[in-house]
Amino acid sequence: MNSELKHELSDWLKKLQASICSQLENEDGATTFSIDEWKREEGGGGITRIIEKGNVFEKGGVAFSAVDGKTPDFLISEKEHSLPAEEKIDSTFFATGVSIVIHPQHPFVPIIHMNIRYFEMSNGVRWLGGGIDLTPHYINLEDAAFFHAELKKVCDQFSPEYYPKFKKWADDYFYIKHRNETRGIGGIFFDRLTAQNEKEFLKLIQFWKAVGEAFAPTYLKIVQKNKTKSFTQENKNWQLLRRGRYVEFNLVYDKGTKFGLETNGRIESILMSLPQHASWQYNFQPAENSPEEKTLQLLKKEIDFINHKNLNLA
Amino acid sequence: MNSELKHELSDWLKKLQASICSQLENEDGATTFSIDEWKREEGGGGITRIIEKGNVFEKGGVAFSAVDGKTPDFLISEKEHSLPAEEKIDSTFFATGVSIVIHPQHPFVPIIHMNIRYFEMSNGVRWLGGGIDLTPHYINLEDAAFFHAELKKVCDQFSPEYYPKFKKWADDYFYIKHRNETRGIGGIFFDRLTAQNEKEFLKLIQFWKAVGEAFAPTYLKIVQKNKTKSFTQENKNWQLLRRGRYVEFNLVYDKGTKFGLETNGRIESILMSLPQHASWQYNFQPAENSPEEKTLQLLKKEIDFINHKNLNLA
Repeated sequence: MNSELKHELSDWLKKLQASICSQLENEDGATTFSIDEWKREEGGGGITRIIEKGNVFEKGGVAFSAVDGKTPDFLISEKEHSLPAEEKIDSTFFATGVSIVIHPQHPFVPIIHMNIRYFEMSNGVRWLGGGIDLTPHYINLEDAAFFHAELKKVCDQFSPEYYPKFKKWADDYFYIKHRNETRGIGGIFFDRLTAQNEKEFLKLIQFWKAVGEAFAPTYLKIVQKNKTKSFTQENKNWQLLRRGRYVEFNLVYDKGTKFGLETNGRIESILMSLPQHASWQYNFQPAENSPEEKTLQLLKKEIDFINHKNLNLA
Repeated sequence: MNSELKHELSDWLKKLQASICSQLENEDGATTFSIDEWKREEGGGGITRIIEKGNVFEKGGVAFSAVDGKTPDFLISEKEHSLPAEEKIDSTFFATGVSIVIHPQHPFVPIIHMNIRYFEMSNGVRWLGGGIDLTPHYINLEDAAFFHAELKKVCDQFSPEYYPKFKKWADDYFYIKHRNETRGIGGIFFDRLTAQNEKEFLKLIQFWKAVGEAFAPTYLKIVQKNKTKSFTQENKNWQLLRRGRYVEFNLVYDKGTKFGLETNGRIESILMSLPQHASWQYNFQPAENSPEEKTLQLLKKEIDFINHKNLNLA
């Protein structure tokens, strides 16, 4: 086991957390992130940084964690489970990551989510996971094209297969089945990436770091472009309804949230993804040809947002 | 199969729905329930009645449904599954019920939930389920004692064992595990009640009807007692946070909601339980000895609210 690596990655993630928070604070101008350090009884801990009631950001979190301990049963392979007791490895694990969810004040500024994580077990198994996805309350096709093009640029530096594969993965993952809607315009999502040899794994790490580094410049460009646009009370109401959908996704489907709730995780860090205000209205139907209806029509899988001029809207 | 019975019960439930709506409308004074009739493709349908933006009630629903069709696989017993194909009964089911969730405007008026349901299969299996439970944003011990005493009165008419048994069932069911909190002060909850003979089953139906009939007078008494009390912005904020917890319970744990989401149920009727406005704040801790902290201390299982004078508060 390369124990140097896990320290290097968790140190890098901690610095990424600090850098992202300071960039978001600069953008907000009015408030700063609080710092909440916590320890995990079974091993490790984390730093949850929260911004609330800002000028630009209504509620958001940038969470770092690095935890270790005895590997949970469900992560040990069937094969190992069937070994006689004396041949079993007393398996331990280490997991580190940064998770972000930001709910902006302005209805034309999108919600964003980012997560990158590294996992290893004492039996040598290790993998990387992560992704960035955007949830605009109102889909602006120009911003959507920019966002996806930035992610494609990051991916293409490493493999031409990454963007199409990870974009589809995000479409499938960030899907609110009971609404037949995607959560937003997706982005990229990948999990359990690993490699045959050290050289290839280090290349994967470079990609994974590039995803983390792309977060702040990409999101801040979209924030800056939209945060001073004028808006109506109707736009605010729609934003609250879309946040309601975000809550539905996170509490019903999100695997990280479910895992955290089921394994007695640190509840405030897990649920930092929830917005300050959200709302529900019975059977809300947007007016025909309204911007709200147009957004709904774009909450579908497999839309090629980069080539948005080719979009054939109903 | 007593097919008379299912018609009698669904007719009775439809009348109960109408009666409850008209009593709540009288109380509200400002608005009325909308009526949304729907059909289920596989058989049956329902009437969802919704009140929104009223004077007393911010958002609530009183839903009636009576659905039938081929029995879902998971409801057929293992024994029947193992029968050879030629011996299997081509099983059909019928289910009817009324479900209510009311979110009031006033922070001192509690949220209430009621559900009564009847289920039968063509193989003769049949049962009754239901309950009423109260979720005050602020627990008032006098109201809590009144509420539980009213439910006990209903139970005691039929069996002295009902109230303690069904009260415990509600404590266990309406529990937000990841918060170590009950959803509210509980009430009564029962499921799959059945009887050996017709006479006993008819007695169960009388009990079940008495639960439905207790809803309106019990709740309205608590509404009337509290709806004109003065309150602060702080009380409103706390109400929104408690509604956030209500959303957490319903999306993460409630079996009816989960079942509906997984089986492609009528989504707007299932999620009518969600409030118009809800809110989350990172790691909110009420001030020491505040009414909010006192409420949190009472969100525990196995509190004897009827004998509230004996409550030993921390």
